[in-house]
Amino acid sequence: MRTAAHVATQRAAPTDMPFVVVAHDGAARRSRLATAHGTINTPAFMPVGTQATVKGLTPAQLRDAGAEIILANAYHLALRPGAALIRELGGLHRFMGWDGPILTDSGGYQIFSLAALRKVTDEGVEFRSHVDGAPLFMTPEDVIRLQMDLGVDIMMVLDECVPGQATRAEAERAARRTLEWARRARAVPVAPGPLMFGIVQGATYADLRCEQARALVALDFPGYAVGGLSVGEDRGITMELAEATVAALPADRPRYLMGVGLPEDLIRFVGMGYDMFDCVLPTRNGRNGMLFTSAGRLNIRLARYTRDESPADPHCRCYTCRTFSRAYLRHLAASGEMLGAQLASLHNVYFYQQLMRDMQAAIAGGRFAAWAAERLAHLTAEVEA
Amino acid sequence: MRTAAHVATQRAAPTDMPFVVVAHDGAARRSRLATAHGTINTPAFMPVGTQATVKGLTPAQLRDAGAEIILANAYHLALRPGAALIRELGGLHRFMGWDGPILTDSGGYQIFSLAALRKVTDEGVEFRSHVDGAPLFMTPEDVIRLQMDLGVDIMMVLDECVPGQATRAEAERAARRTLEWARRARAVPVAPGPLMFGIVQGATYADLRCEQARALVALDFPGYAVGGLSVGEDRGITMELAEATVAALPADRPRYLMGVGLPEDLIRFVGMGYDMFDCVLPTRNGRNGMLFTSAGRLNIRLARYTRDESPADPHCRCYTCRTFSRAYLRHLAASGEMLGAQLASLHNVYFYQQLMRDMQAAIAGGRFAAWAAERLAHLTAEVEA
Repeated sequence: MRTAAHVATQRAAPTDMPFVVVAHDGAARRSRLATAHGTINTPAFMPVGTQATVKGLTPAQLRDAGAEIILANAYHLALRPGAALIRELGGLHRFMGWDGPILTDSGGYQIFSLAALRKVTDEGVEFRSHVDGAPLFMTPEDVIRLQMDLGVDIMMVLDECVPGQATRAEAERAARRTLEWARRARAVPVAPGPLMFGIVQGATYADLRCEQARALVALDFPGYAVGGLSVGEDRGITMELAEATVAALPADRPRYLMGVGLPEDLIRFVGMGYDMFDCVLPTRNGRNGMLFTSAGRLNIRLARYTRDESPADPHCRCYTCRTFSRAYLRHLAASGEMLGAQLASLHNVYFYQQLMRDMQAAIAGGRFAAWAAERLAHLTAEVEA
Repeated sequence: MRTAAHVATQRAAPTDMPFVVVAHDGAARRSRLATAHGTINTPAFMPVGTQATVKGLTPAQLRDAGAEIILANAYHLALRPGAALIRELGGLHRFMGWDGPILTDSGGYQIFSLAALRKVTDEGVEFRSHVDGAPLFMTPEDVIRLQMDLGVDIMMVLDECVPGQATRAEAERAARRTLEWARRARAVPVAPGPLMFGIVQGATYADLRCEQARALVALDFPGYAVGGLSVGEDRGITMELAEATVAALPADRPRYLMGVGLPEDLIRFVGMGYDMFDCVLPTRNGRNGMLFTSAGRLNIRLARYTRDESPADPHCRCYTCRTFSRAYLRHLAASGEMLGAQLASLHNVYFYQQLMRDMQAAIAGGRFAAWAAERLAHLTAEVEA
């Protein structure tokens, strides 16, 4: 059944509301989010530029690939080269040569996955730098100030991440702390410009996540993220938790599902009502010779592509697919040539951006469900030669 | 003293002569060389794309950097992915997405530096592939056919390379064989299109090199290369040998000095009358964080660049220098980010191409000597912060 797209009715909101839902289609939304460095269209995918570079791609290539917003990591940049240094040099946009919107993850996830000798108190996190072992202490307030130093468009609050297998008690303690940290972050005076997003945690406990979400909403953030999913738990559980949590988030704010995922996952999450995503897969898999295509995954290292004259994805209009054959890409991968990683990353980022544009059009056209069913049937296959 | 530039008088030559000297200035020449894939301006520098890729750069970026011709390696491509395969896929230009002229080195140097269990006879070279250990035998005729399979614009004959410390007897034997191989290569029927260049060897013996050159010239090649220089011998000796050899080469054919060199060397060799060059330095040094600039070499890894807002070379108009600071490039190098290698390689290739354009203009303007003195004074310095 075709669901008619319609202009969304906005909940009463401040007049400077940066987020406007343009069309609904089931739970899926087509929106626009205005930031200090331009407006992005959602559903949006943010290529990951952890260390102030999306690995292997110039800003010009990112633009050509259709990226409207990228993600960087406040924790990584605070450690190297330092947020004060980046501020001194004119901010992160100027530093990395990207004049579009930037969202920074706070680094909560990185502190909990990379840093050594971590000690969490209600006050903040004590840890050692994974770069040089230097002892550091960060409060929720520090992390916001750090992102202000970077001059980014969307700042994330500091959150405490627990493993997917956390007990109820551990999850509750971390959730309580994350909420208190969110309150403190929200109280930091921020000059007009950057938007601050809260983050819902709660491990694998749906009721805890919903409770967290409601409490965060009371703090009236310009946007809400859902974190700590796709961190090792069963995929069915990820889907259930994502769906349960999104229901507790307000319709008039952007909803960002952090750190996911595969193209087929993005379609499902958009179908639930999520608007924003980030993931290392397009670039990481590109470096490993795995290309996402409209007909499924393509492992360019396979011998079957040795004489294959066709482009990686015959339906793709990216520079890689317009210029090179699978045979050439395979030769580069087999020879360990850097250009192979670059061209595959370029294609994958373009592929993700095209997927988002397709979703935007399907939602605006009120044909998202049919479009999604059609795409999902092809996306997960392994490409046949 | 200013030497007036003048239109060169051509020696009697076939009407289809692809090489035209446009201006002389002392021994330096400003010329044009027509190939099946376009005309190149000389003095010309060829970025090295050994395995059908100039490391880290797309063909589009190479064009933007001003490259008119690139070099690939017949030996490497014959081993992987295979010359027959590349022919099947439409030739090397189509394979690697580069529609400008391509020169391939025959692989003589690589056979003598990379291959294991090498055995040289008058008939050809027996060796094992450095890729997979497969036994191979290549004759001078094979090497030409192989380059015809690749479909390149300029083919090099197979030569026997000896170490810089070779004795007179060793050098003479190799030179005699290289000459006989050149005769056999020249006799291979070649369809109109590709140009075949002979190669002068002779180790460190100037008289042997001149004798070689004269004998090669009798074979009437469309161009002549000088090989086996800058392979470990003293730099003063390189200069002497290069100068002695160029005098034995005809004025109406392009002269290609293989595998060199630093920017200051190129200026000196152009001053001797050489027209074409190739070298891995711009990309290899780029990957190691060494940037060539108009004020000298810049090691971007040094701590002194941590807060440096200026571009790598304030006089450069490349994408890297127009977009990024030294501080950012240093951050990328310190973080081991691939983009750092790419941006430095891009800059270095642009820098070399700009140097060639500057030389072309100086020669055409009859002010090469003054220009060279001025540039040489700056090029070899280490950049001060």
